[in-house]
Amino acid sequence: MLLACLDLEGVLIPEVWIAVAEATGIDGLRRTTRDEPDYDALMRYRLDLLARNGLTLPEIQGVIGTLDPLPGAVEMVGWLRERFQLVILSDTFYEFGMPFMAKLGHPTLLCHKLIVEGDRIVDYALRLPDQKRAAVRAFHALNFRVIAAGDSYNDTAMLTEADAGVLFRPPANVIAEFPQFPVTTDYDGLRAQFERAAAVLG
Amino acid sequence: MLLACLDLEGVLIPEVWIAVAEATGIDGLRRTTRDEPDYDALMRYRLDLLARNGLTLPEIQGVIGTLDPLPGAVEMVGWLRERFQLVILSDTFYEFGMPFMAKLGHPTLLCHKLIVEGDRIVDYALRLPDQKRAAVRAFHALNFRVIAAGDSYNDTAMLTEADAGVLFRPPANVIAEFPQFPVTTDYDGLRAQFERAAAVLG
Repeated sequence: MLLACLDLEGVLIPEVWIAVAEATGIDGLRRTTRDEPDYDALMRYRLDLLARNGLTLPEIQGVIGTLDPLPGAVEMVGWLRERFQLVILSDTFYEFGMPFMAKLGHPTLLCHKLIVEGDRIVDYALRLPDQKRAAVRAFHALNFRVIAAGDSYNDTAMLTEADAGVLFRPPANVIAEFPQFPVTTDYDGLRAQFERAAAVLG
Repeated sequence: MLLACLDLEGVLIPEVWIAVAEATGIDGLRRTTRDEPDYDALMRYRLDLLARNGLTLPEIQGVIGTLDPLPGAVEMVGWLRERFQLVILSDTFYEFGMPFMAKLGHPTLLCHKLIVEGDRIVDYALRLPDQKRAAVRAFHALNFRVIAAGDSYNDTAMLTEADAGVLFRPPANVIAEFPQFPVTTDYDGLRAQFERAAAVLG
């Protein structure tokens, strides 16, 4: 019995912080874990930038509301759901992810949460460290076999833990460091990888 | 962060074996765990009846294809998905459940599997014993709080394991034996129970 675990940003939707940076003109929000590998330091920096620019959660959600899933993502989700049980594993926050879930037909999303006071984001709550890997382990304990796909460094633990892992539009350093995972750059290729893995895993 | 776990048969869709009994006229398929508490004995009896009547999986799926979710179930699923991460926990089989999933907008379904040779159901494979309880435990380990709803005896372990449990249209003996769970008989009442539990659990 097969479960599909999919990353969200970069696989089904655009990178949210980049999109907010573009829409608000706050260039500092373009900073990613590639520039600042310490995730907590990066989030403190982002929250500080939001506070200094007086950017509220409703304003950010207004920006997110104008964004669409990547072209073909809705069809990709539909295709997966007809063949597998689908769970989205993302390190985004529900406050950012849920507007996209509505546009993707509300697949199940396991992610994190912001801490909000009034209309201001004051902190964030990781539901669990290394949650993508932990989720695949939990599904294994429930006797599912897992095919996982993601685009970046923070997906590689999930891909390693899964019975089959696929890289979707990854950066060159991830391809170089994880040559064991097949790489695909479009949804037709991703569907082919899922079909191939499913044929092997039964 | 809140997860909703919902039973399937009797909560969102009709009882499949009863429906197949009605459509095929094979009255023996009306037998349930209330008549035969040994689940394996009941399944052997059902598979034997299918074989003796020459009933194939495609024929059963043809019957299932004519069945609809319970009135209001599609809206109930939609309401839950806007507010919670929804996972359906059922002791049905994917071969029976998936046509209903398509009609319910493909929520994530964790259930069991039939063993099919050609077009005949020859056996069944429980993915995991006591899988509903195990799933709630796994979601707890992933730091989710769980609100669960089901209608029958095989849901009570899930309801007990969850942070809040609700009985939906249960038989009298389940109400009597599990007075700790609130009882509701319609979807408005079920929505109210989920709202109440969510307000308590945050």
